[in-house]
Amino acid sequence: MTPERYQRLLQTLRLRQPDLTVITDEVHKGRNLSAIVRTCDAVGIDTVHTVVPQGGYRGFRGTASGSHKWVEVETYADIHQPVEQLRQRGFQIVATAISPKCKNYLDIDYTKSTALMLGSEKRGVSEQGLSVADEHISVPMIGMVESLNVSVAAAIILQEAFRQRQEAGLYGTNRLSAEIQTLRFFRWAHP
Amino acid sequence: MTPERYQRLLQTLRLRQPDLTVITDEVHKGRNLSAIVRTCDAVGIDTVHTVVPQGGYRGFRGTASGSHKWVEVETYADIHQPVEQLRQRGFQIVATAISPKCKNYLDIDYTKSTALMLGSEKRGVSEQGLSVADEHISVPMIGMVESLNVSVAAAIILQEAFRQRQEAGLYGTNRLSAEIQTLRFFRWAHP
Ligand SMILES: C[S@@+](CC[C@H](N)C(=O)[O-])C[C@H]1O[C@@H](n2cnc3c(N)ncnc32)[C@H](O)[C@@H]1O
Ligand SMILES: C[S@@+](CC[C@H](N)C(=O)[O-])C[C@H]1O[C@@H](n2cnc3c(N)ncnc32)[C@H](O)[C@@H]1O
Repeated sequence: MTPERYQRLLQTLRLRQPDLTVITDEVHKGRNLSAIVRTCDAVGIDTVHTVVPQGGYRGFRGTASGSHKWVEVETYADIHQPVEQLRQRGFQIVATAISPKCKNYLDIDYTKSTALMLGSEKRGVSEQGLSVADEHISVPMIGMVESLNVSVAAAIILQEAFRQRQEAGLYGTNRLSAEIQTLRFFRWAHP
Repeated sequence: MTPERYQRLLQTLRLRQPDLTVITDEVHKGRNLSAIVRTCDAVGIDTVHTVVPQGGYRGFRGTASGSHKWVEVETYADIHQPVEQLRQRGFQIVATAISPKCKNYLDIDYTKSTALMLGSEKRGVSEQGLSVADEHISVPMIGMVESLNVSVAAAIILQEAFRQRQEAGLYGTNRLSAEIQTLRFFRWAHP
C-alpha cells in the first residue's frame, strides 16, 4: 500500500459518523440499495441496516463502485430488530413518508443520533415501521409524479444531514471507537 | 376529468420554472435518465435536454412512474446544440465535475436562469461540455468511492435550486408562457 493510500484510509475513518445511519424497510431493488450504500459512503456513514424483503433481493451485489467494501451492511428479518437496537443506543428514528402531513425534512435536527428509515419501491415504509418512528418526514414535491426514487430521496435527506453535521463540527473529530477503526482498517487495507 | 384533477394540472403548470433545466451529456443508462426526469418533475422543470449517447439509450422508456408524460425531453446529437440555444436565452451553464478544484454546488445562485449539465456514468461530462460551461461544481464527498450515481448527484443539486427558488418566491407566480401552458395542458389532459 502506498503512503498516500494509507493516509486516505485513515482520513476517511476519522470522518466516519457512528451516530448517523440508514434503515431500509424492504427496499427490494438491488440497484437502489447499491446507490443508497454508495451515498452513505460519501457522507461518512459506517453501517447500514437493511430489512431483507420477502423473496430476497433482486440483483443486489452491493457492488456499485465497490461501495459494499466501505460500508457495513447488516441484514435483518424484521424491522423491530434494528429499531430496538438503535433506540437502545439513543437514536431518533426518522421515517420517510409521502404526505403533506409529514414534517419537511429540513425541519429535523440531524446532529442528534439519527436513523433514517426508507421504504420499499411499491409500498413505502411499512405500517410497523411508521408506528415505531419518532418522526415522519417528507421531501416536498410540486410535480405530477407521486414520489421520488428511493435512492434519490435518501440522497437529498442525507446531504442535509451532512450539511448540518459539517456546520456543527462533527466531522472535525475522530468519532468511531478505536476498536471499530482498527477492524475497518484491516478489512479495508487487505485486498 | 374530475374537477380536482383539472385543478391539479393547472396548479402544477403554474409552478413550472421555464428558466431551470438540465442537460444530460451522454448519460446512457435508461434508468438513470428516468430517475433524473422524475426528479425534474418534482422540482418543477418543464423541459430536459439530452445529448443522446453514441449507441443510443440502454433501456430508456422514459416511464419511471410515467414522468415522461409530464416533462418534455428534447434530444440532440451534440452538446453544442442545447448549450447554444440556452445561452442565447440567457442561461448560465453549470457543469458538474468531480474535483476538489470545483466550486461547492451550494455556492451557485440558482435563481438565475440555469442549465445543470450532467455527465455520463463512465466518463463524466465531456471535455467539450466542460469547456463551454460557465461554472464547474461538485457535491462534496468524504468517503472512499470516487463519485455519486448521476441521478443522485442531480437530485442533490436540483433540490438546492428548488430551495433557493422557493425562498426567492419564484414558485409564487405563473411563469410559463400562456402558449406553452396551453400546449402542456392539452397534452396532459388527453390520455
Ligand atoms: C417510491 S417511494 C414509495 C411509494 C409508495 N407508493 C408510497 O406512497 O409510500 C419509495 C421510498 O422512497 C422514499 N421517498 C420517495 N419520495 C419521497 C419523498 N418525497 N419524501 C420522502 N421520502 C420519499 C421513501 O423512503 C419511500 O418509502
Ligand atoms: C459516475 S459520475 C462520472 C464519474 C467519472 N469517472 C468522472 O470522474 O467524472 C457521473 C456523473 O454524475 C455526476 N456526479 C457524480 N458525483 C458527483 C459529485 N460528487 N458532484 C457533482 N456531480 C457528480 C456528474 O454529472 C458526473 O458526470
